[in-house]
Amino acid sequence: MRRSNLALVLRHLRDAGPRSRAGIAAETGLNKATVSSLVAELVERGLAREGELDRAGSVGRPGTIVELDGRGVGGVGVEVNVDYLTALALDLTGTVLFEQRVALDVQALPPAKVLDATAELAARALRECRRLKVAPVGLTLAIPALVDVEAGTVAFAPNLHWTDVPVVTGLTERLTQRLGRLGFPIRMANDANLGALGEHAMGSVAGTADLVYLTGEIGVGGGVISGGRLLGGAEGFSGEIGHIQLDPNGRRCGCGRRGCWETIVGLAGMLRLAAEPNDPVHDPSLDLEQRLDMLRRRAELKDRRTLDALAQVGTGLGIGAAVLVNVFNPRVVLLGGYFAQLGPYLLGPMMAELKARVVAPDIGGCRVELSWLGFSAASRGGANVALDAVFDDPARVAAGAGAGERDSG
Amino acid sequence: MRRSNLALVLRHLRDAGPRSRAGIAAETGLNKATVSSLVAELVERGLAREGELDRAGSVGRPGTIVELDGRGVGGVGVEVNVDYLTALALDLTGTVLFEQRVALDVQALPPAKVLDATAELAARALRECRRLKVAPVGLTLAIPALVDVEAGTVAFAPNLHWTDVPVVTGLTERLTQRLGRLGFPIRMANDANLGALGEHAMGSVAGTADLVYLTGEIGVGGGVISGGRLLGGAEGFSGEIGHIQLDPNGRRCGCGRRGCWETIVGLAGMLRLAAEPNDPVHDPSLDLEQRLDMLRRRAELKDRRTLDALAQVGTGLGIGAAVLVNVFNPRVVLLGGYFAQLGPYLLGPMMAELKARVVAPDIGGCRVELSWLGFSAASRGGANVALDAVFDDPARVAAGAGAGERDSG
Repeated sequence: MRRSNLALVLRHLRDAGPRSRAGIAAETGLNKATVSSLVAELVERGLAREGELDRAGSVGRPGTIVELDGRGVGGVGVEVNVDYLTALALDLTGTVLFEQRVALDVQALPPAKVLDATAELAARALRECRRLKVAPVGLTLAIPALVDVEAGTVAFAPNLHWTDVPVVTGLTERLTQRLGRLGFPIRMANDANLGALGEHAMGSVAGTADLVYLTGEIGVGGGVISGGRLLGGAEGFSGEIGHIQLDPNGRRCGCGRRGCWETIVGLAGMLRLAAEPNDPVHDPSLDLEQRLDMLRRRAELKDRRTLDALAQVGTGLGIGAAVLVNVFNPRVVLLGGYFAQLGPYLLGPMMAELKARVVAPDIGGCRVELSWLGFSAASRGGANVALDAVFDDPARVAAGAGAGERDSG
Repeated sequence: MRRSNLALVLRHLRDAGPRSRAGIAAETGLNKATVSSLVAELVERGLAREGELDRAGSVGRPGTIVELDGRGVGGVGVEVNVDYLTALALDLTGTVLFEQRVALDVQALPPAKVLDATAELAARALRECRRLKVAPVGLTLAIPALVDVEAGTVAFAPNLHWTDVPVVTGLTERLTQRLGRLGFPIRMANDANLGALGEHAMGSVAGTADLVYLTGEIGVGGGVISGGRLLGGAEGFSGEIGHIQLDPNGRRCGCGRRGCWETIVGLAGMLRLAAEPNDPVHDPSLDLEQRLDMLRRRAELKDRRTLDALAQVGTGLGIGAAVLVNVFNPRVVLLGGYFAQLGPYLLGPMMAELKARVVAPDIGGCRVELSWLGFSAASRGGANVALDAVFDDPARVAAGAGAGERDSG
């Protein structure tokens, strides 16, 4: 009971922001003595701290404001995608401690080599946490795959060409070799689902209860928040939207089928439309954002081929998104990955298709927005999922452990 | 606090079945004295009753079993569809008190005439409740439409050709004229969403947490249960799956677009494939189940045209359902409406398409099942939704009101 009330107060500080003990008591339904005792415990564990005095409407003694702390507790998110790896570390207050993306042609490498490079990048993030005196409580790996979460294996990753790869075991071994015993769990989940969680937690439309997140990479992934919760599905395989068939006679997809949505609007399809095969925008050894910036500059200079390609992709985006809007009736369709970076050139044709195809008058009040988090959404979501362990059970953080030494050293 | 604990105990009796007071206390976390007092109040209100003695593992005095009652409390569901009206009344124990379907060519009538016929049928259900000494706590109208639930209006019903029709007001007026002051609320919701709730509450796959329910009528409706909850959407417009475009050059749909899924697998499309225009299976004045039985007999007699039509519809069902299975990863796709009645002829070709199109190995552990509730699912769901008022706040039922007099008179 006390443990779950401790979690209740910590989550309330995260969701509702700094406030007085009296405010916490009134809003959670706990009595004031209990709240004081719980806050004392959170402060002791370094997960909350006293802030300034609360003078609002005070008649008696002014109470102090309590706010979320946890600068000594970290969560790490790592993403393996077709063209890059990303790692990002957050502390409990949401401050980014480490963020890095490296270009990697994952399709050209065997899984063992990819895991080597992933472990190298993850170790860098973890060493930075150590340097900052932040104790990681978990690491979540994001991957464009059907993930068997329980087993920690990739069941099937069409665009990586991986089947039944024991990724969590492989990564744990490699990280242990580099850093010794880890002392925290490694988990894995679908990249787009984690991206949706990252956007829902801290993106441009954070807190939107009904959200369809579309991420444009080589594949097209979808993560759906419905009624404030991630739509998981019976096996956690939901959101495989890239394989909606839009053209039975279309191009062969990584999944083996024809004319899937991602053959039309995925990164490879877009680049094929936009540039000749020998154009540097195709070079997987260059950073993806730089390659996309080249295209954006061409579009700004009104290069016909680039503009035509983006208009065609925008139309394709609208055709597929209309299916999802009819099915989910979201408040927002959020474009992530490369869609966000080239969004200004995609939105017009996309909206035209949505207006023509969505059944609800005025497309059911749905807006299309561009992600601010871009290619970091999935690793942010992963770091947030790792930190959920603390919000679910603050008592797992030992007294004196959570405050860190960054500000006090 | 007491009201919400009262609701907790009543829902526990519904979901977990008859059990001792000690069992209720252990399973809900309430203390035994509180449970005894809450049970006494539920018994007084006629919502629970004492059953037989519980002798299982008893050392001391055997406790009596408590079970859900509420035979004096009713919920009514009424469905308006393209070809028929349905009304169904349930008491709180889930016993069907009244069920009737009447053929009606709704497209050929103005909304006012349809509401007259609907009120007539609903009044019949309510009079039967009165005769059985059952007090209705609510009536829910199911309709194949985008429903503005707050306003009680149909925003848009493509297959009824209704736009902005104030249905709840119209029905309330007509019922009040017939029966006097009603004393309970009338609500309206989408037919497929209510069907999914009806199936989830009391159908062949009741309790399945991840369920896609497809109902075949003139339109094709979808209701999705995800993680045990109905997927609503930002405006309650989710599940408009009938308008997924499968053929850009296809037939004109009721929604004004071309090649929507329901033009291929909806009832009208299926009947067009299966029989000449003058065939009696097209006659909307005949009961729909009888018309479908004609087709089933022809299929059993291996009539080539009928079998070809059903195979083609089964293939179309699989093509569209694959999109939904990729997006939702449900445990079960449940076929309702006419799909259930002709299911044995649809399943083979449907499964072949699913296997070819779903990304997850072995289609993500998804089964396809046929509804037992058939055309009554939506009105059952509506009656259940009406009864939720009692499960949310049992204190709304006056003492002595809930037990009814059917068994004691």
